[in-house]
Amino acid sequence: MKINAQRVWERLNSLATLTEPDRPWTRRSFTPMFLKGREWLRAEFEAAGLSVSLDAGGNLIGRLEGADASLPPILVGSHSDSVPSGGRFDGMLGVIAALEVAQCLQERGERLEHSLEVVDFLAEEPSEFGLSCIGSRALVGKLDDAMLAATRPDGMTLREAIRYVGGNPDALHSPCRAPGSIAGYVELHIEQGKILESRALDVGIVTGIASIRRTRLAVTGRADHAGQTPMDDRADALVGAARLIDGAFRAALAASTPDVPLVATVGRVSTIHPNAANAVPGFVELIVECRSANEAAVAAFCDDLVAGLAPEFEQLGLTVETERLSHVPATPCADVVQKTIAEAAEALGKSACALPSGAGHDGMFVSHIGPFGMIFVPCLQGRSHTPEEWLEPEQAAVGVEVMYDTVIRLDRTL
Amino acid sequence: MKINAQRVWERLNSLATLTEPDRPWTRRSFTPMFLKGREWLRAEFEAAGLSVSLDAGGNLIGRLEGADASLPPILVGSHSDSVPSGGRFDGMLGVIAALEVAQCLQERGERLEHSLEVVDFLAEEPSEFGLSCIGSRALVGKLDDAMLAATRPDGMTLREAIRYVGGNPDALHSPCRAPGSIAGYVELHIEQGKILESRALDVGIVTGIASIRRTRLAVTGRADHAGQTPMDDRADALVGAARLIDGAFRAALAASTPDVPLVATVGRVSTIHPNAANAVPGFVELIVECRSANEAAVAAFCDDLVAGLAPEFEQLGLTVETERLSHVPATPCADVVQKTIAEAAEALGKSACALPSGAGHDGMFVSHIGPFGMIFVPCLQGRSHTPEEWLEPEQAAVGVEVMYDTVIRLDRTL
Repeated sequence: MKINAQRVWERLNSLATLTEPDRPWTRRSFTPMFLKGREWLRAEFEAAGLSVSLDAGGNLIGRLEGADASLPPILVGSHSDSVPSGGRFDGMLGVIAALEVAQCLQERGERLEHSLEVVDFLAEEPSEFGLSCIGSRALVGKLDDAMLAATRPDGMTLREAIRYVGGNPDALHSPCRAPGSIAGYVELHIEQGKILESRALDVGIVTGIASIRRTRLAVTGRADHAGQTPMDDRADALVGAARLIDGAFRAALAASTPDVPLVATVGRVSTIHPNAANAVPGFVELIVECRSANEAAVAAFCDDLVAGLAPEFEQLGLTVETERLSHVPATPCADVVQKTIAEAAEALGKSACALPSGAGHDGMFVSHIGPFGMIFVPCLQGRSHTPEEWLEPEQAAVGVEVMYDTVIRLDRTL
Repeated sequence: MKINAQRVWERLNSLATLTEPDRPWTRRSFTPMFLKGREWLRAEFEAAGLSVSLDAGGNLIGRLEGADASLPPILVGSHSDSVPSGGRFDGMLGVIAALEVAQCLQERGERLEHSLEVVDFLAEEPSEFGLSCIGSRALVGKLDDAMLAATRPDGMTLREAIRYVGGNPDALHSPCRAPGSIAGYVELHIEQGKILESRALDVGIVTGIASIRRTRLAVTGRADHAGQTPMDDRADALVGAARLIDGAFRAALAASTPDVPLVATVGRVSTIHPNAANAVPGFVELIVECRSANEAAVAAFCDDLVAGLAPEFEQLGLTVETERLSHVPATPCADVVQKTIAEAAEALGKSACALPSGAGHDGMFVSHIGPFGMIFVPCLQGRSHTPEEWLEPEQAAVGVEVMYDTVIRLDRTL
């Protein structure tokens, strides 16, 4: 094996120790714990011989110079932030893998023509600002003033938060990197699904990332005393919210096909007012997320849901407002990267299949400035975003090995 | 008019100013703002010639001595705490009315045989400890060690909180007042419903308080990545919760009759985990509250709801646990008090009707130690527990007038 599997595993475990102690595994973006992770990463990057910088978007970058200074760099990486009570691998594996690739290249005396940049993207997971992929958005100039003005519950703006991690929000009116300024971007990630595990495959070659739309639904009824308000005289916003939640579940179940999966989730209820046991809820806010490679189905999902329930909402005395929070179109992976990953896997004798990603990744944005691809490795029972998230050390090592070979091949191809 | 209507209205307005400034009208029990309200009340009680004390249960009491020291006192009062973003009258009207009765008796030289005690009961509204009617429970010895050990989100125990407001939790192993130690208890309160308003009546004579049961339902599924988990492979706890919420609404709507109303409410969702836009919820906790004079229907409501949904929950891969948080049996009002209120209203030429209370009140507990009754006055559109809670000054005055006459009559009758 060309890579150091033990070092990869040890680094994953070291980084995992940097968690909120009472809530493993939590390293939320823009927190002191996130900065501790960044400090650790910076030291590891430097020890591995990379020259370290932080760009205006708050992305941590470790660069290994290539032989031909005229070529744009190849980017490899992922993110070091987690969801609350998340796992130890989603994101971290890709950063540690990228670091391992850069370190092995040096240890093995393999000098690439392209420079290689190991990137820890800022805040890939949904942040307290209601926004995900903050660093990769900034990288390609897709972080606008409205987003920078978003506030988290304690009142801090995203602009201030980017400064807090060492970025320079004032420079974000233009992209950190122009289109064509990178040779490509490859990321290693756990699948977060069960396809590879169930088919006992080593790696997945990602064909693209599903379209993702998040919509805020605000249901307004009338807060009333729960004891003195007859059932037929209520406008219970939580009952309306319940019908939206269940309706979204049933509609997605009906719309999804094995060929073109569609998922819809109400994962977050942000407000229930007054939220007291003895009060009829007067106002509820929730977020509906819909994902599919079927762009039109994603675009229509929430409107159809709300329209379908309109007669019931009228009868319940409720109104509902919808606000699109975000929409990321489907992102196909570059053919050249998919093909190169497949060749690397084959050359190493690793089993592989092509598969789509329902999860969003920084590649959705990085793809704006250069060809993008992803390598998936299996994870236990497909679970992620939970403390039980797991993959075997050998599975991680195989992924890093395919990544290493892919980078060497891309260096020749791109 | 025998009472001072203007003074009543001015006091209501003065007390209302003691609210969390950014969230009118909020005076939550066990907060600095609550203590400010108490300080103001104590000063008003003293200025009105009452001798003021605080009992072990944290109830504020202003006593006017009667002519016959051998007789037990008549209690009048209500509570000065509010729900979050509540109103200015629910509770406060009863305390101010009781004070007015005591003050007018003195000003008019009407000395009662019984002593009269004006009581501001501690924490009638659901507190941060998940418990309501804390002071009246303590009064009659129904505040047990388990309740005293309850903690609020910041970790403070109810025992500590009672000490914070000046009570003595260590003395609560026995009731503050023994059965038979009071001659009776009467409370004036806004109706919190629309019956009096819709029939243009001056006062309601409460026949009794509905049984109230609160049940915690905990739905356990499996937290998963919202993008990578197919719809048919989810165990979404929020979808289960949605079916419970909607199911409770539909079941109560079907079970309620005009003669014996029943209401069921999911007013509070206490936990959604992980509550992130891109995560399938794995755990949800909510509180179902059911109220009716039909004791058996209240007792069966939650079990029937859960049993009815069992096949769906099995299909969804969800489990549900139920825990009874509280159950207060239906409390009939004493005939003698109902009859006396009716006589007082008639003598004053005020229109009245008998009606049940769906809302809980301290009388549920005070009834354990003596005869109990309530007078309702109309409130605008029946609304309460909301900043829009309102009644006209004249409506308040009529209620206090009936209260005054009722107390004088009870002094002769009891």
